[in-house]
Amino acid sequence: MTDFTFLCNECGARYGEDRSLYVCPACARFQAPGSFTRGVLRVELAEQSLPRRWPDAPLASPEGLAPFLPVRGPDSFFSFAAGGTPLLPVPRLREALRMPRLFLKDDTRNPSGSTKDRASALVVAKAIEYGYETVAAASTGNAATALSAAGAASGVKTVVFVPASAPPAKLVQMASYGARLVPVAGTYDQAFELSLEACARFGWYNRNTALNPFTVEGKKTASLEIARDLGPEAPDVVVVPTGDGVIVAGVAKGFADLVRCGLLPRVPRLVAVQPERSGAIARALRSGAAEITPEPDAGSVADSLTVAAPRNAVMALADVRASGGCGVLVSEAAILDAIPRLAAATSVFAEPAAAIALAGLELALAEGKVGREERVVLLVTGTGLKDVPAAARRVKVPEPLEPTIAAVEALLR
Amino acid sequence: MTDFTFLCNECGARYGEDRSLYVCPACARFQAPGSFTRGVLRVELAEQSLPRRWPDAPLASPEGLAPFLPVRGPDSFFSFAAGGTPLLPVPRLREALRMPRLFLKDDTRNPSGSTKDRASALVVAKAIEYGYETVAAASTGNAATALSAAGAASGVKTVVFVPASAPPAKLVQMASYGARLVPVAGTYDQAFELSLEACARFGWYNRNTALNPFTVEGKKTASLEIARDLGPEAPDVVVVPTGDGVIVAGVAKGFADLVRCGLLPRVPRLVAVQPERSGAIARALRSGAAEITPEPDAGSVADSLTVAAPRNAVMALADVRASGGCGVLVSEAAILDAIPRLAAATSVFAEPAAAIALAGLELALAEGKVGREERVVLLVTGTGLKDVPAAARRVKVPEPLEPTIAAVEALLR
Repeated sequence: MTDFTFLCNECGARYGEDRSLYVCPACARFQAPGSFTRGVLRVELAEQSLPRRWPDAPLASPEGLAPFLPVRGPDSFFSFAAGGTPLLPVPRLREALRMPRLFLKDDTRNPSGSTKDRASALVVAKAIEYGYETVAAASTGNAATALSAAGAASGVKTVVFVPASAPPAKLVQMASYGARLVPVAGTYDQAFELSLEACARFGWYNRNTALNPFTVEGKKTASLEIARDLGPEAPDVVVVPTGDGVIVAGVAKGFADLVRCGLLPRVPRLVAVQPERSGAIARALRSGAAEITPEPDAGSVADSLTVAAPRNAVMALADVRASGGCGVLVSEAAILDAIPRLAAATSVFAEPAAAIALAGLELALAEGKVGREERVVLLVTGTGLKDVPAAARRVKVPEPLEPTIAAVEALLR
Repeated sequence: MTDFTFLCNECGARYGEDRSLYVCPACARFQAPGSFTRGVLRVELAEQSLPRRWPDAPLASPEGLAPFLPVRGPDSFFSFAAGGTPLLPVPRLREALRMPRLFLKDDTRNPSGSTKDRASALVVAKAIEYGYETVAAASTGNAATALSAAGAASGVKTVVFVPASAPPAKLVQMASYGARLVPVAGTYDQAFELSLEACARFGWYNRNTALNPFTVEGKKTASLEIARDLGPEAPDVVVVPTGDGVIVAGVAKGFADLVRCGLLPRVPRLVAVQPERSGAIARALRSGAAEITPEPDAGSVADSLTVAAPRNAVMALADVRASGGCGVLVSEAAILDAIPRLAAATSVFAEPAAAIALAGLELALAEGKVGREERVVLLVTGTGLKDVPAAARRVKVPEPLEPTIAAVEALLR
């Protein structure tokens, strides 16, 4: 049993565990569309519950994770192999960038192909503890897919509210996992609101990002793995693709917990990478603004990062600033270029919203925000197989040739 | 240094290591199209080189693998995280099938999304040992993609010969890894012949399946991992999707080597699962025929298993028979049905050529070839994200609905 409380990131109010509490009632405000969330709750593990050494069990196992996560114990987890992804030394990219201490955390190798599986694993574990039969979520893609996969693994029923305009491939993957699919003729914000109403009406648990506190908490397992794999050294910088600000907050939370545990000297600097066309958090980080300015016309090829107003902006801004990190903004062309460049230098084929990490690192290097000698980790959050058409915009498939050696010689010339 | 020789599976001739030797010169015969390969060479590790206990290092690391594989040492491997995939206990599928000892080896979680990464890791390691700058392969999809990924990781140049009719998604993935793509206006057999000619002409190393002896050898690492993860118990049965017979031979080889090492009591029974529409090996296993009968009209939704004459049939038949195993034949409808059934019961989203394992297991159960109490492992060889259109044939995406709670209630009714 790991004791914990909920802490409001806005007013500092503290609450005990409550299965129907999502955001701070005093601070919560939603103004869809183009809104962001105030009053997101942060899980705070009790001092006496903090582990003071690394577990003997593998970190991605129930026994390895339970001491770090707000669950009753190892038995809270169901059989779902989220996380445990490799930290790659990427020698060829190191050479190309002249960065001898660069690493890549390959989170494309999660069960449904994205980092979101980490959050769904914890949320569904909590849903089971709380006695819910059904978990719902609104999402544009990866989060709903991850919830569907966790439902398939656990037997918990899942309902996913998605804009009907979502990529067909993602809809097919969710449906294959057996989720109840609710395609909404409307925007993501409308799907979000509808999911809230449906959860209230039907008594479902809600996994929505920047609403359910366990989405931030679940994603912190990526940081635990990075710190353990790099140990005894510590990372200097982690580069994090950023949309609504939940992944970057989760990454920060993992390192911060390890500092509290005495297992890491400090939280690494976090570089939040956003598309220029959906960059509210990075823009506020660069301007020093206290709050984000919503971008109603946000739209990027990195669909998983496209958001008018990042719902977890308040927490993300605070976390990146506290780490001494920064934000960078990447053009659409540079995002697309990064897909084959990353794949060809590392063997990691990423979706646009994940390949953006490479382009973001290069900008941070050029701006002097990251040094080439530093120990830097690129977090690559989703597989390129989820969005093959985007990759196809930057690679050339030659015309078919006759099966003769002369034709091959001509092609190679 | 692991000492080894090559052993002809046809005449039993033995050869020393030779970088330009692929198949037994005395027995080799190709009669494309519709041919199969005689004289495939099997790697035989020298008795004095066999490890007598499991390594202390993780099995998927260079230090863990080097004692079991025909390489000079751990330094022969480049940074490429092939294998190390989870063995899942799949509790919900166990319950549905009343098989309390069922496991799933999730090889969808390889770097490029398929088991073929295991073979490419070894072949490229050998190419580097031998001093080759370029490795080529003919393939319909996954093998060429895996070679491209290994090239990206190692810096070895890759050239892939593919029928121009291959799925565009696979072509885009290969091109993203930086492989030199040669789309051939012709059949797979023509691409195969052309790759042989090009390798001879340009001095490239050839990774073709059932030609390069290290493709069988590389795939055996799946068996090493299964045996180690299940230890001290041993698997009774392993269910293997089968096309040209290389994966099933590789799986057999891994277990056979462990028996020689004294680390496993016996090779488990192997169930070779093929589509009815591309089933030469399974048909020969069922009829007891000494040799396969080629099927010039082979064609299945399981594209990775479609082959007129399985090139590694001789070795595959011998290995499955020696294990006490059998072959089963799955209809096209059952292959497609298995995709969402496997995904919804296990959270593993597989391509048709991999989901077929579930359908094959059910047939083997019905035929009394496998008992429900036995310790059975399903090998799931490739991710469903490689062939989303196939999955889309069996799941329903509902019509978009208005964002009102009334519409949700109507949908759920």
